[in-house]
Amino acid sequence: MADKGILIVISGFSGAGKGTLVKRLLSDYDNYALSISMTTRLPREGERDGVEYFFTDREQFEKKIAENGLIEYASYCDHYYGTPRAYVEEQLKNGKDVILEIEIQGALKVKQQFPECLLLFVTPPSAAELERRLRGRGTETEDVIAKRLARAGTEAQGMEAYDYIVVNDDLDDCVAELNRLVDAARRAPVRSQDLIREIREELKGYVKGAE
Amino acid sequence: MADKGILIVISGFSGAGKGTLVKRLLSDYDNYALSISMTTRLPREGERDGVEYFFTDREQFEKKIAENGLIEYASYCDHYYGTPRAYVEEQLKNGKDVILEIEIQGALKVKQQFPECLLLFVTPPSAAELERRLRGRGTETEDVIAKRLARAGTEAQGMEAYDYIVVNDDLDDCVAELNRLVDAARRAPVRSQDLIREIREELKGYVKGAE
Repeated sequence: MADKGILIVISGFSGAGKGTLVKRLLSDYDNYALSISMTTRLPREGERDGVEYFFTDREQFEKKIAENGLIEYASYCDHYYGTPRAYVEEQLKNGKDVILEIEIQGALKVKQQFPECLLLFVTPPSAAELERRLRGRGTETEDVIAKRLARAGTEAQGMEAYDYIVVNDDLDDCVAELNRLVDAARRAPVRSQDLIREIREELKGYVKGAE
Repeated sequence: MADKGILIVISGFSGAGKGTLVKRLLSDYDNYALSISMTTRLPREGERDGVEYFFTDREQFEKKIAENGLIEYASYCDHYYGTPRAYVEEQLKNGKDVILEIEIQGALKVKQQFPECLLLFVTPPSAAELERRLRGRGTETEDVIAKRLARAGTEAQGMEAYDYIVVNDDLDDCVAELNRLVDAARRAPVRSQDLIREIREELKGYVKGAE
């Protein structure tokens, strides 16, 4: 049987490059699976049900909430967004490391339910670089850029809640580093419970023998 | 100026191969320095002052304790063993990652004083393998082997206090993994305080701008 996978939450400032990093983890390595969020908002041009999101209506979403079928959910601009529990648990059981790309409030809710989950925070090397990237997109108004930067200021207050802070300076380096951090996390006691239990059981025999 | 180094505590069962692993980390990489313990026991054949240990007498050792000149100390078989503070702090300041090879009680005392220290626990793949290695040395009596295994049973109770549990199965793999874990640990928030502080400071300007 495969070892249980790690539930990985990736958060970070808007403009830190999370989306690209997640895509690269999924394409460069075969141990990752992406959690697909469920939402009540309508699909945008090109978005497919079950790929970018699971699209549903308010009634079905609230039924999911009532059944404890979501790991976390939140409401933005009158729409629900949430993480379906069944898919995540199934993938973890199959040994996949499941990636959730969510913001800090959701991350903390996930941590409460899965204390062995891994929280990764991605940041550009500096706030100036963050601003440069947001402007570089060329798609955002000044107002939106200002709001995103202001929101980053709030999000930065929560960085200590994460297991690792990763600087996304060079994309290739950052992808490789994220993967190394996931491997490192496998050695934390919270994810080595089987090993610890077995060693303790085995050693019990020796303690008795020495009495 | 070099970034401050990481204080690394390596513990593990007697027979886990800690000594060899530490020697290899020191020879394979140039970022490590070894903390040298101070002791009141007499040098054994071939042991040199300032290499294996700093050898001293009881009076000088107790003076060190009184001056808070030791990070931790313990007494075994009527002899003191301790970690001189000055050398460790000097090396950390110079950017070296300083390795302390000590047992769990000492490890926990170090963690109290240096919350940002990294605790690594080394174990063979199984208790049977531990026994095999202890016997393989051919230098220990049955009585000593039994005592070491019994002690391992007690030490195993403290494994959760460590940051990472590392299995020493293949020596080369284990050395490389320990080094990767130290690198991973640099990304923990407790060791990324400068980065977090700078980003927060920079972002403050944007929050004000958006008000």
